[in-house]
Amino acid sequence: MENRILLSHGGGGEETQKLIKNLFFKYFSNPILEKMEDAAVLNTNSKIAFTTDSFTISPIFFKGGDIGKLSIAGTVNDIAMMGAKPRFLSCSFIIEEGFPFEDLEKIVKSMSEEMKKTEVKIVTGDTKVVPKGSVDKIFINTTGIGEIIYDGISASNLEEGDIILVSGSIGDHGACIMAQREDIEMESEISSDCASLWPLVKDLINSGVKIKAMRDPTRGGLSAVLNEWANQSKIGIEIEEEKIPIKDEVQGLCELLGLEAYTLANEGKLVLVVPKGEEEKALDIMLKSPLGKDSQIIGKVISDYKGKVILKSSYGTRRIMEPPAGELLPRIC
Amino acid sequence: MENRILLSHGGGGEETQKLIKNLFFKYFSNPILEKMEDAAVLNTNSKIAFTTDSFTISPIFFKGGDIGKLSIAGTVNDIAMMGAKPRFLSCSFIIEEGFPFEDLEKIVKSMSEEMKKTEVKIVTGDTKVVPKGSVDKIFINTTGIGEIIYDGISASNLEEGDIILVSGSIGDHGACIMAQREDIEMESEISSDCASLWPLVKDLINSGVKIKAMRDPTRGGLSAVLNEWANQSKIGIEIEEEKIPIKDEVQGLCELLGLEAYTLANEGKLVLVVPKGEEEKALDIMLKSPLGKDSQIIGKVISDYKGKVILKSSYGTRRIMEPPAGELLPRIC
Repeated sequence: MENRILLSHGGGGEETQKLIKNLFFKYFSNPILEKMEDAAVLNTNSKIAFTTDSFTISPIFFKGGDIGKLSIAGTVNDIAMMGAKPRFLSCSFIIEEGFPFEDLEKIVKSMSEEMKKTEVKIVTGDTKVVPKGSVDKIFINTTGIGEIIYDGISASNLEEGDIILVSGSIGDHGACIMAQREDIEMESEISSDCASLWPLVKDLINSGVKIKAMRDPTRGGLSAVLNEWANQSKIGIEIEEEKIPIKDEVQGLCELLGLEAYTLANEGKLVLVVPKGEEEKALDIMLKSPLGKDSQIIGKVISDYKGKVILKSSYGTRRIMEPPAGELLPRIC
Repeated sequence: MENRILLSHGGGGEETQKLIKNLFFKYFSNPILEKMEDAAVLNTNSKIAFTTDSFTISPIFFKGGDIGKLSIAGTVNDIAMMGAKPRFLSCSFIIEEGFPFEDLEKIVKSMSEEMKKTEVKIVTGDTKVVPKGSVDKIFINTTGIGEIIYDGISASNLEEGDIILVSGSIGDHGACIMAQREDIEMESEISSDCASLWPLVKDLINSGVKIKAMRDPTRGGLSAVLNEWANQSKIGIEIEEEKIPIKDEVQGLCELLGLEAYTLANEGKLVLVVPKGEEEKALDIMLKSPLGKDSQIIGKVISDYKGKVILKSSYGTRRIMEPPAGELLPRIC
């Protein structure tokens, strides 16, 4: 192979065929993908979850992951959040002419390793190579199909008394990318939490806990998820501020830059809503999983403050957790 | 709305919600999309076709279409080529900061109009806005799910005696983009053939004709499809050169630039393989459709020249139709 990606690798001719066979099949190999038809033919449950994400993150390699790992975990997580087992992915690369082949292989290998954690498979794909300056290095779209095994999860399900949990410390991914981009040295290095959450979701489903709503707080962070829920379910949410798990180094970076950790992106955390009485069981399951070892009960659904999220301090004072606005950090995912 | 797309429109916060509700819901509105969960929940056949494409075409507006129309037709066609009825699409935009809102609306409207031709729906989406210089204007990924209603179409099915048809003139899309990009004035202006082919495919399926293989010859053109078939089915293909429909103005441009029309991209044509004896019935169906009014029988599968495509001239001379190589035209789709 050449050591740089050329326009001809995206031309649809012989060089494209070689790239597909020598690189993509090497790491993504499975009988459906190798048929190389215009579309993959799949057998699934008749009730499926379907979701898409384009990954444009910069830098493409970061502490705790890279754009490849993120492109798998991100879409797997959106499927899992609907109570569906991730089954099939499509994968579309847009690559800048001259991109190092070695970096592409590193990304593809990382995607392959992340897929092994959930048995999801890439079954169809597309590769475009565009001239220098038309794209910054590489963008990846993954679109996924999951088989729904737990039905009825929805942002509209929240009712007074429901309990809200989070599966671990928040803001790690956002803080990591920000620190790396701004070249900020922190005493303890912040690492992205990028991870596929399906194993944790599967444990929750198998435990029999009733799941009312579930989201992975990516762009816009915890604040975006809670505010969307408050809006869609037309209820209020009360969060106990000191219960929100935040790593010291993330908190430090937030203070340095004047940010709130709950607006920072996460890529390996989930926020969960269960009916009152089920929270201890849910917490127990979550704490047993490596993906939820720092889980916490953080709040509850209230009938006041409809459409709002209230942060209650340990002194009993209350303030509104505003929905995120503006663009804190472009190209975070 | 602002008249330019800002980074905050992709931030996942309030501005993103506004863009989704004020623009995307205006044109793409349907109950599944409006649920705004992490993934769309769908009911489908248990046997589905699944395909993805990222559209990076330049210019984004061209004679006969635009990147929006193309992003729908392209994915609808890949689904249809597998004998599947297009049902659901995901749609992911990557937009450059500062992109005119008016152009985005034009594109979204064009997508909406193209979807009406086949009843396919966008049920889930993603929007990224990246800083100036990180992407050239706008890229769109669409990924589609279709329900297979005609099973068994494959590039590996070709056998000696099978007949090959094409649904109309070839090279129109490639020639159009090339002419427009190079600012070449042609006597008669060349227009892209960009179109959703499902109505034609449905007519073929309903007619009872046996479809062995079917492809839309996009990147790499007719030559890429025929060479892939010859390779995958391990047979030879003989094409009668003068039977290939090519518009005079496309032929003229090819002669001017020293190109072969059969390597140019198409976005609204299909190549079809039927068993000997069914070709007249297939041709009849195709000619009756506005999508196939210039259809032709162009060749047959032979046992010699395994893995090769042979062009036979009207004088009886033969030459090899080489598989496309290199990159004629980046950002053609």
